[in-house]
Amino acid sequence: MEYITGGICAAKGFTASGVHCGIRKNKTKKDLALIVSEVKATAAATYTTNLVKGAPIHVTKANLADGTAQAVICNSGNANTCNANGIEIAEGMCALVEKHIGISKNDVVVASTGVIGQQMVIDPIADAMEKLKANLGENSKDAAHAIMTTDTKLKEIAVSFEIGGKKCVIGGIAKGSGMIHPNMATMLCFITSDVAISSELLSKALKDNVTDTFNMISVDGDTSTNDMVVVLANGMSGNAMITEQNEDYEAFAAALHAVSEHLCRCIAADGEGATKLLECRVSGASDNATARIVAKSVICSNLFKAAMFGADANWGRVLCAIGYSGASVDVDKIDITFKSASGEIMVCQNGAGVDFSEKTAKEVLLRSEIIIDVNLNSGDGKASAYGCDLTYDYVKINGDYRT
Amino acid sequence: MEYITGGICAAKGFTASGVHCGIRKNKTKKDLALIVSEVKATAAATYTTNLVKGAPIHVTKANLADGTAQAVICNSGNANTCNANGIEIAEGMCALVEKHIGISKNDVVVASTGVIGQQMVIDPIADAMEKLKANLGENSKDAAHAIMTTDTKLKEIAVSFEIGGKKCVIGGIAKGSGMIHPNMATMLCFITSDVAISSELLSKALKDNVTDTFNMISVDGDTSTNDMVVVLANGMSGNAMITEQNEDYEAFAAALHAVSEHLCRCIAADGEGATKLLECRVSGASDNATARIVAKSVICSNLFKAAMFGADANWGRVLCAIGYSGASVDVDKIDITFKSASGEIMVCQNGAGVDFSEKTAKEVLLRSEIIIDVNLNSGDGKASAYGCDLTYDYVKINGDYRT
Repeated sequence: MEYITGGICAAKGFTASGVHCGIRKNKTKKDLALIVSEVKATAAATYTTNLVKGAPIHVTKANLADGTAQAVICNSGNANTCNANGIEIAEGMCALVEKHIGISKNDVVVASTGVIGQQMVIDPIADAMEKLKANLGENSKDAAHAIMTTDTKLKEIAVSFEIGGKKCVIGGIAKGSGMIHPNMATMLCFITSDVAISSELLSKALKDNVTDTFNMISVDGDTSTNDMVVVLANGMSGNAMITEQNEDYEAFAAALHAVSEHLCRCIAADGEGATKLLECRVSGASDNATARIVAKSVICSNLFKAAMFGADANWGRVLCAIGYSGASVDVDKIDITFKSASGEIMVCQNGAGVDFSEKTAKEVLLRSEIIIDVNLNSGDGKASAYGCDLTYDYVKINGDYRT
Repeated sequence: MEYITGGICAAKGFTASGVHCGIRKNKTKKDLALIVSEVKATAAATYTTNLVKGAPIHVTKANLADGTAQAVICNSGNANTCNANGIEIAEGMCALVEKHIGISKNDVVVASTGVIGQQMVIDPIADAMEKLKANLGENSKDAAHAIMTTDTKLKEIAVSFEIGGKKCVIGGIAKGSGMIHPNMATMLCFITSDVAISSELLSKALKDNVTDTFNMISVDGDTSTNDMVVVLANGMSGNAMITEQNEDYEAFAAALHAVSEHLCRCIAADGEGATKLLECRVSGASDNATARIVAKSVICSNLFKAAMFGADANWGRVLCAIGYSGASVDVDKIDITFKSASGEIMVCQNGAGVDFSEKTAKEVLLRSEIIIDVNLNSGDGKASAYGCDLTYDYVKINGDYRT
């Protein structure tokens, strides 16, 4: 597997576009993205589990019921959620793709991110469709830019790998948490591939993958109303259709995991106000599910996140978060080590503190990527969770008035 | 029922004391508290559910196994948690009470709050015992001060009420979240009463009460290793022993609730860095359990808490937190109203935004006590949860180096 450029346009048959249509007032900020596959693609998606769901979630679910799609349209600046005419607008966006791009409205994935409960009109999108169409090309970055909100960095990735001698590609773009008018930490990710794979296995690969990647990110513990991860696989690489969990499937799943993990790390590192990427890497759990619960509890602890902002080796907060996680663990067996590019330092062994140099610990924790290595010493289960520190800027971004 | 002065010494037969013993360096800060009942009292307690438990929790549990106690000793400045000799120290503190006060060590409740994983020596406590004894008297405030950490306000309350013509009293002191060397948001509460009540009913009253009061507070979602609520009832009011759930029991339970609710509101309002007390008051739920889940989810949302810091009427975050709470609710029936001393303003009806004056909303939200009134319009269940806003100071307090 090799990391390549091109993002969501790296896979055969995919083009993308991103323009400013006017939902946002700032004219330098693109706010409308389009992704198109030359041919109809197998499609799978996972959605927010929040009972409050954006209208685009409902429309996309209906359109993906047959397991296929050919385009993605997404706006930023308005979440189209809790609006009386939300469904009408979301369906209208799909109809605009049919009208201007010639792809059936039932084969369109629609997504929105922004303020919720704010009236939305479709006119700016309708007016921009020809410009959006004209921009279609190798423009993964334009699309990635258009879905950003308060993200400070564009998030895209692509990998190439082989299946039965055929070069295959998976690429993706994503957006993380934050809004210029902050409201919801919406997470969106669009993944494209030229692999030929059955609808069932694509769904399975995505579902298995999300458990260990996107569902293991936490910026602030708030699950948005509009979260969506979509993967389109159009089969244009020419590989023999993957219809069973053989080695071809494993190759696809591994590449999907690499793309997802990269985007997750980007999203966590670029969380609202974040100065550090935190990875809690749990091993020695009785099973993977236990490891996931422990890792996520640590990464979600406000107290621990604030300590990381202060580069404070406050391991007691890690132990505390493990203790209230709900996972069944033997506290007296827990080892904790902090790691970064500066080195590593063990701070807790068998559930009790060990003597360590505060100076060395500080050096380790002043880096921008910190691994909190937790060994439960009780089995082979493992998992990683991704988060960020809790900073003054998180409070500032989210405490500001909307108006 | 009447609110009276005197705190934990208002009930007949209780004296208290608080001194500086030297666990803390700051000599103006008391760090050792003692509460004594003239006669042996019926006792009940609830403890942290964290798997990582401070040594005092284990010792107190053992001492309360027979349902009686006569004294409480508590230090601040060191949590005596994750220490190799923690049990020895906690048992030693009980033995010191036996030696100096003449109360059996098995009738002592012991508690500690402070940094975890830090070596602790018993000498400063041993050396201060005579001073602590000499200070015993109507000194509820001294004890309340001694258990404080970064609390900015002393927390005490007492109420008087009648049972069968006898004047009865319940008083309490509590500490909230924060440490001078911040580590754990330990919550401690000691309640004294002169009511005569059976051990079974005292336990039941406390358990029922905690569900709706202390378990409904959240400052930052982190459950400490040392949380403890203890109630001692020594029977000196002369009421006929309460042995069944009759109207005497109801009177006791109501007074216990009043004391607990007051202390909870104090703890939430004085959460680390807090500028506002938030109460999420949920009604119209299918049952009380559902109402509790919804109320707590709102009060725990970082995004919403930051919005309250900014006095931003961002009701979408309330709806979002309800949506991911895990409670079964009909989103389309939810009404949300913000209330304070300035008035009230409805911001969401039937799950959708309503037109409202941002100016009025801001006036409502600039007050120091905000009620978020959520009506689920689906039944008679109700609950309140108590929290505080998320501020720069929370990050500052918890991001600081321990050293």
